[in-house]
Amino acid sequence: MKQFIEVLEMVAVASFALGGAAKAIAKRLDAFGVLFIGVVSAFGGGIIRDIVLDNLPPVMFSDYRYVAMAVFSSLILFVIARILHGKYGENVRFLSKVNNILDAVGLGLFTVLGMNTALNLGYSDSVLLLLFVGAVTGVGGGMLRDTMLGEIPSVLTKHVYVLASLTGAVLFLVLYHFGVPEVFQTLVPSAVVVLLRILATYYKWNLPKAY
Amino acid sequence: MKQFIEVLEMVAVASFALGGAAKAIAKRLDAFGVLFIGVVSAFGGGIIRDIVLDNLPPVMFSDYRYVAMAVFSSLILFVIARILHGKYGENVRFLSKVNNILDAVGLGLFTVLGMNTALNLGYSDSVLLLLFVGAVTGVGGGMLRDTMLGEIPSVLTKHVYVLASLTGAVLFLVLYHFGVPEVFQTLVPSAVVVLLRILATYYKWNLPKAY
Amino acid sequence: MKQFIEVLEMVAVASFALGGAAKAIAKRLDAFGVLFIGVVSAFGGGIIRDIVLDNLPPVMFSDYRYVAMAVFSSLILFVIARILHGKYGENVRFLSKVNNILDAVGLGLFTVLGMNTALNLGYSDSVLLLLFVGAVTGVGGGMLRDTMLGEIPSVLTKHVYVLASLTGAVLFLVLYHFGVPEVFQTLVPSAVVVLLRILATYYKWNLPKAY
Repeated sequence: MKQFIEVLEMVAVASFALGGAAKAIAKRLDAFGVLFIGVVSAFGGGIIRDIVLDNLPPVMFSDYRYVAMAVFSSLILFVIARILHGKYGENVRFLSKVNNILDAVGLGLFTVLGMNTALNLGYSDSVLLLLFVGAVTGVGGGMLRDTMLGEIPSVLTKHVYVLASLTGAVLFLVLYHFGVPEVFQTLVPSAVVVLLRILATYYKWNLPKAY
Repeated sequence: MKQFIEVLEMVAVASFALGGAAKAIAKRLDAFGVLFIGVVSAFGGGIIRDIVLDNLPPVMFSDYRYVAMAVFSSLILFVIARILHGKYGENVRFLSKVNNILDAVGLGLFTVLGMNTALNLGYSDSVLLLLFVGAVTGVGGGMLRDTMLGEIPSVLTKHVYVLASLTGAVLFLVLYHFGVPEVFQTLVPSAVVVLLRILATYYKWNLPKAY
Repeated sequence: MKQFIEVLEMVAVASFALGGAAKAIAKRLDAFGVLFIGVVSAFGGGIIRDIVLDNLPPVMFSDYRYVAMAVFSSLILFVIARILHGKYGENVRFLSKVNNILDAVGLGLFTVLGMNTALNLGYSDSVLLLLFVGAVTGVGGGMLRDTMLGEIPSVLTKHVYVLASLTGAVLFLVLYHFGVPEVFQTLVPSAVVVLLRILATYYKWNLPKAY
């Protein structure tokens, strides 16, 4: 089981690193800037989670493989974008699509993995804290990334973003409560978050405004 | 006494949630965005304080009523703004006034409540830490709110803002030192902060610039 | 030796406070805004480091002299800028140069001092954490400063900035590993960071972009 979680963590780290790197490349940052934004995107949420849960130093420093994965993902995308550009011209739209899909995958996985971490640390009695930790692990990396890039965080501009994460978090708690096997307990809510994000983007779901 | 503090906390949470929500509505965020900014405004300062004081997980997660109050305040203002708009057209100026006054009340109360929390945790010997904790509890929520909305934090743009909070913090320490009853010790500095903010806004108090 | 480190800390605090204040003056903030940005620049990185290392409350609150140094440095520059302006007109370019050089000195010293703090706390076994702590102590204050001023952090815009800090951090670890006397172990990497920053600015070093 531990190995299964580790694989999910690797996928989540790679998704957010690639998504962040794609955004940084589209913003025309240099190689190190792309690497930096990739790493911040991948670990920002987890670091905030570990600070709030007093789980310090943050988990990401305990295992080199995660950081290696984030660095490698960011650089490989940088190289690919550089090669492709020579052949096909500007590929901002392609990068934006890459970012959107990977961002959804990262959001779903990190939401679930964040709550899983909190449960393993023994915080099973505060539903409020668990929901917060799920959302902040999912959303935190993207928030730091966008703030650093001088943009209003996608949290506020993308349709149904935090709400998708919170929906996945509630679903995770329900499955956890009913003792569903861990494979389903992690994969089903993640998949629901990804689905919600894709549907929200595709159908341009809007929540009401005051005026 | 504990109950008195709890009432003040509720008022402070509602003030900052309403103030933040008013700002988010004026910025035309959708319903969830308004809710999100309301909650961030209400709890941002306290979370930063709890992190710095190693008082984790943050206090706000220990009692559902605070989060419920912030969520409820934000949504009720959203609904009112929606109804009123149908009748009276754009009400940005009204919302800006609501934000200004509630922001002052929140600033005053949170400054005092933040220091109170630090004293209860036993940090009575570092005046520097107490002043910092007062100011960061008062100012932190608004800072996160403004950064997320892509604005320069009001900390830097509003006249006599952090300075008002620090004045209240110093006054609180003086009253605490002389053993004034807790009711006065909390209410007097809060009122002074509110008064300073209102005077500074009304009379457009300016500090000197280098040029 | 402790005294030597304290002197370096004082120089680092003064450098970042002066650099931040210079930037705030050039942005035409008022006296308190300049003071505030000076203090945030000087202590932001160290506070983030102490949070990540669970070394709370942050070190800066344990000794009044550091905060006094930051406040004094910021105000003295404010006064000088005010007097000089009366005589020589706008001095934005001069302030920008002051900021650039002091920023380099602060970056070099804080990188090394941050790692030193981590080693003293017993975190000698995680190279990854040490490198992170060095970079975040060096870069954090400037990042908070720029975000508050509504700018994209210099981390992303200045050539070879985080990279300079990381180079110094690696060099520090190498010297530490070979047991070089502490004076060299702290001064040599700091000097290399300053040199890298000056060379990068002067020769406009650029890293490659994807396109």
